[in-house]
Amino acid sequence: MSLAPWRSPLARALHRNRSDAHARYLQLATLRCDQRPANRTVVFRGFLAETNRLQFVTDSRSDKIEQIEQNPWGEGCWYFVKTREQFRLLGKLTVVGPVHAEADLLAARQKIWQQLSDSARNQFVWPQPGAPRSQSQAFETQPPAPERPLSNFCLLLLTPLEVDHLELRGEPQNRYHYFLHHVKGWSEREINP
Amino acid sequence: MSLAPWRSPLARALHRNRSDAHARYLQLATLRCDQRPANRTVVFRGFLAETNRLQFVTDSRSDKIEQIEQNPWGEGCWYFVKTREQFRLLGKLTVVGPVHAEADLLAARQKIWQQLSDSARNQFVWPQPGAPRSQSQAFETQPPAPERPLSNFCLLLLTPLEVDHLELRGEPQNRYHYFLHHVKGWSEREINP
Repeated sequence: MSLAPWRSPLARALHRNRSDAHARYLQLATLRCDQRPANRTVVFRGFLAETNRLQFVTDSRSDKIEQIEQNPWGEGCWYFVKTREQFRLLGKLTVVGPVHAEADLLAARQKIWQQLSDSARNQFVWPQPGAPRSQSQAFETQPPAPERPLSNFCLLLLTPLEVDHLELRGEPQNRYHYFLHHVKGWSEREINP
Repeated sequence: MSLAPWRSPLARALHRNRSDAHARYLQLATLRCDQRPANRTVVFRGFLAETNRLQFVTDSRSDKIEQIEQNPWGEGCWYFVKTREQFRLLGKLTVVGPVHAEADLLAARQKIWQQLSDSARNQFVWPQPGAPRSQSQAFETQPPAPERPLSNFCLLLLTPLEVDHLELRGEPQNRYHYFLHHVKGWSEREINP
C-alpha cells in the first residue's frame, strides 16, 4: 500500500505538537441509533501497520459499538493547539472484538492491548460504563494481564475516505481537501478556508 | 430562568483553564444530509443572556447550515486539557440569520458581531468557503464595519438537553449525567466512567 497524501501533513502536525501530551486526543463523531449525533474524545493509537487506518481502543460495553453497527460512518476532528491546524477525517469505522474474520486485525488488537498502560487496561475490568455509579471498591481491581486481551476489549479502526486540513496560521489561511476515488485513488486540491 | 446544574461545573472548568487560549474551542458534531456525521472545531462565544444556550458564529455559506436545517441535533464535545475533563453537550441547534422571528435573537446576533475581532469579521467577506482556492488577493479585504452584521453572518445556538461530564483526574474517575425532563426540569446523577 502507499501512504495517503494527507499522511505527510498529519505526521508533521503530530511531530510539531509532540511536546503537547494531548496532541494524540481527537474527537470522534458517530450517529446514535435515534439519528442524533454523538461526539467524544478518543486517543489515537497509531496507524494499523501498512495501512492508512487510524487505531483507537474501546469497550464492547460502550454505546458507540451499537451506533457503529447501525451506521459505520464516523468523522474524527483533530485540532492541534500548538500549530493551530485542524484535520477532519471522514470514514468508516470497524470494531475488532475477540472474534473477527481477519487474522491480522486480531493480531493488531492483541498488540494494542499489550501496549496499553496498566491503568488503561484496568478500565476494562471496571463496572458497566454509564450505569449508576458503583461503589468505589468496584474500581479497585488488579490490572488484567497484558498477555491476552479481555473479551470486552475492542480495537476500533477509522478508515478515512475524505480528509479536510485547515491551517489557521496561513495568511489568510490554508485549506486542503483529500478525497479517495474508487479507481484512481486519492486526489488533493486546495480550497478556500 | 434558572441555571442548569451543569453550568456550575462548566463555569469552573472554563475558569480553571482560562490560561489556555484554546479552552474556548470545542468540537461540534452534526449530521450530513447523507446521514454521515460531520465534526468541526467551533469557538464558544458565551451563553445567550438569561439562558443555558451556547453561542457560536457561523457563515450561511457553510455546509452545516443545510445539515442543521435537515436535522437540528448536534453534540458538542469539549475537552479541557489542564483539568483533564470532558463535557459532552447534546442538544438542538438554531441558526439565526438576518431574518428571524425572535427579536431578542436578532439583537444577540448583532451584539456578537460587534464583539468579534476585525480578523474574525473579515472571514465573512472571504470567497465561498470550500470552493476551489481563489487568488490570494480575494482574501485581502477591508474588514466589514462592526455596526451591522453582514447578511451571511449567523449566530448559532446550541440548546443542551443532555450533558455528560467526565473527570479523568478522579480516582478512579468521576462522571455525571444531566438530563432535561419535559416537566420536572434537569436531573443529575452520578454514573460509572
